[in-house]
Amino acid sequence: MHGFFKVTPLDTVFRHMHRFGVMDMETIPLNQANGRILAQNIIPESNYPDFNRATMDGFAVKAESTFGASEANPVYLTLTGNIDMGEIPAAAIQATETMAISTGGMLPEGANGVVMREYATEVDEITIEIVRSIAPWSNVITEGEDMAAGEIVLASGTRLRPQECGTLAALGRHRVDVFKKPRIGIISTGDEIVPVEKKPPTGKIRDVNTYTLAAMVENCGGIAKSYGIIADDADILKKTCLNALNGSDILMISGGSSVGNRDMTIEAITNLPDAEIMVHGIPLSPGKPTILARSGHIQVWGLPGQVTSTMIVFDRIVRGFIDHMAGLNPASGTTDLCVPAFLTRNISSTPGRTDYIRARLKKEGNRYLADPILGKSGLIHTMIKADGLIEIGMNTEGLEKGTLVNVIVFK
Amino acid sequence: MHGFFKVTPLDTVFRHMHRFGVMDMETIPLNQANGRILAQNIIPESNYPDFNRATMDGFAVKAESTFGASEANPVYLTLTGNIDMGEIPAAAIQATETMAISTGGMLPEGANGVVMREYATEVDEITIEIVRSIAPWSNVITEGEDMAAGEIVLASGTRLRPQECGTLAALGRHRVDVFKKPRIGIISTGDEIVPVEKKPPTGKIRDVNTYTLAAMVENCGGIAKSYGIIADDADILKKTCLNALNGSDILMISGGSSVGNRDMTIEAITNLPDAEIMVHGIPLSPGKPTILARSGHIQVWGLPGQVTSTMIVFDRIVRGFIDHMAGLNPASGTTDLCVPAFLTRNISSTPGRTDYIRARLKKEGNRYLADPILGKSGLIHTMIKADGLIEIGMNTEGLEKGTLVNVIVFK
Repeated sequence: MHGFFKVTPLDTVFRHMHRFGVMDMETIPLNQANGRILAQNIIPESNYPDFNRATMDGFAVKAESTFGASEANPVYLTLTGNIDMGEIPAAAIQATETMAISTGGMLPEGANGVVMREYATEVDEITIEIVRSIAPWSNVITEGEDMAAGEIVLASGTRLRPQECGTLAALGRHRVDVFKKPRIGIISTGDEIVPVEKKPPTGKIRDVNTYTLAAMVENCGGIAKSYGIIADDADILKKTCLNALNGSDILMISGGSSVGNRDMTIEAITNLPDAEIMVHGIPLSPGKPTILARSGHIQVWGLPGQVTSTMIVFDRIVRGFIDHMAGLNPASGTTDLCVPAFLTRNISSTPGRTDYIRARLKKEGNRYLADPILGKSGLIHTMIKADGLIEIGMNTEGLEKGTLVNVIVFK
Repeated sequence: MHGFFKVTPLDTVFRHMHRFGVMDMETIPLNQANGRILAQNIIPESNYPDFNRATMDGFAVKAESTFGASEANPVYLTLTGNIDMGEIPAAAIQATETMAISTGGMLPEGANGVVMREYATEVDEITIEIVRSIAPWSNVITEGEDMAAGEIVLASGTRLRPQECGTLAALGRHRVDVFKKPRIGIISTGDEIVPVEKKPPTGKIRDVNTYTLAAMVENCGGIAKSYGIIADDADILKKTCLNALNGSDILMISGGSSVGNRDMTIEAITNLPDAEIMVHGIPLSPGKPTILARSGHIQVWGLPGQVTSTMIVFDRIVRGFIDHMAGLNPASGTTDLCVPAFLTRNISSTPGRTDYIRARLKKEGNRYLADPILGKSGLIHTMIKADGLIEIGMNTEGLEKGTLVNVIVFK
């Protein structure tokens, strides 16, 4: 029957994720690796650092030589040399000896600590007065203390941030195996949609969804490609889909908010090669008329025409599927970021579906307030004002002002 | 005197920000605008939408015609037509009339609401039974309700997210004025540094900072360019700086953690054209030996050699300067994201400086725990384990387990 359909529970939707594969890997230069997803475990072949490094400017000593040293009772050590940066110290040191060392310098054999410059005075050219005792291995990073040979330092599936790029540099990985970026084809449908460059005649609107979806795809590490605007014609839509399937790992058809258009999208998807409609309708507000399908191993989404609904479905559902295909390990720490915040007004909700309420975060002292954005769900400006979403579960009728909620921050 | 210098209070450091200009603007295609910073106010020339739009599939009516309608007491209206998507309705409607309409469709003249399909039945070809009354303007977005003509919808200085890109699309802005990306030159210094491709001899290490800084620059919307590794030689460093200044808006010299190297960096910067050292030493841990200078109008940073220190100085200090130069309006909502969390252990701190403690966020029910990362400040792996930083203010001696802190999440 037109306009009504059975919805698939959200956990069942996510269970389809594992029916889709993960991207192949490719090897790229390290300076292009930021933001990419690692496709190999990184295991250092040798200890890092591979020598005992000073973390302070000062004097390398046997820590035991300084025991009991104080302003009142200094210890005097013989200066046997200066350790040049990046050089192997010329000699070992004995209990009565010390060598000047800089931050990053290599400790000489026999040394197990660095006395900071501030606590040492050059009495004469060969005598250093020490006024502070140090514990063994003070102001030193010992061999392998940062990363030990044979240990997994970065696991496959990790999204590379600047610190992970730095770690790869430290280990000499100037080329890195990462998962290829998923290629995501975007088709916008609807008789009422005109290209952005055109002035829409009354009754029509510009193509908002292609630009919004492309930006969201980009933000989650995919490559977006637009296949244009298709009027409500199932044959042309099918042809465009066939063309897009060739160059895509995932295909997104946005539009279909009107019943006729939704039927057309379903018809076009059903007629694709080796097609299967997995999900048609999800218990999400906004976003109910979402379709998940496949054509062969290619993921096909039918997304709502209303841009705000499409954004929320993308954020809460589609992104997980893209991340999975992109090789991201959800345990690697780059999942949703939720900020606990106190609701500034009552919000109501309909049981039986998961509602997402747009909210703005406001800092108040040491805590956050979550200010639900007023206005109809279809208004774009509500998304501009929002920092993220508040989820109201299937079995909740609403939330009271003052409740501590989690705001899922937009990525 | 070697190894000691006066530090500049943090708020004084930030006060130098406004001595540097903001980037020029450039006009780019909308599909490249995601993540960029808007350099113009966006003011719609006409209302958006420019007609009353249905937000549901159903029947366009005068709301007043439905008043009192219920299952027990239905209202019958005459169906005078169907509104095609993207078309101007053929006629107005009267109190006794209705027209079928789809989501996104244009309301006919005289209509001020849409009855959802679920509450309407086609009794025969020209009669619709309505069993629910609606308030005026139900299930409609009225002309200008999303964005009104003449109103500032997006302000100059806003970082464009997918929803802002969508808004620009809605308004037909297929080309957008944005601020140019700052070009940031990176020089790595130190006798102990070897290129990433090389196996460092004992006592030396690979160039970690160039890759880490480049990734951080990228993440805050700059264009990073490496000018290589310079051994401890002030003349060569100065020559390299002069070359880098030509193609940069900001220059970063990392290294200088050892006293000799620090002196060299200061010497090289001092000898640049129209040079001024603005800050030498900040009360930050880690990160004390930071230098802020200028050569003409170009910003020059001397950053610590220890990569973890450099990352924290970049995150807490340098990023603000880059954002300023990049045209970002800090009020536009893309400032630090802090997650309130409860400390899982005591942490100590030294008064008189701002300490940044790395922490991992752990979700526990509806709240977060902040787990301080153990390990010496110079260890890279502590940054890999961390999600963000806890700030401990100048006048605080430490924080107790259980304290509610803000974790500033890494960007």
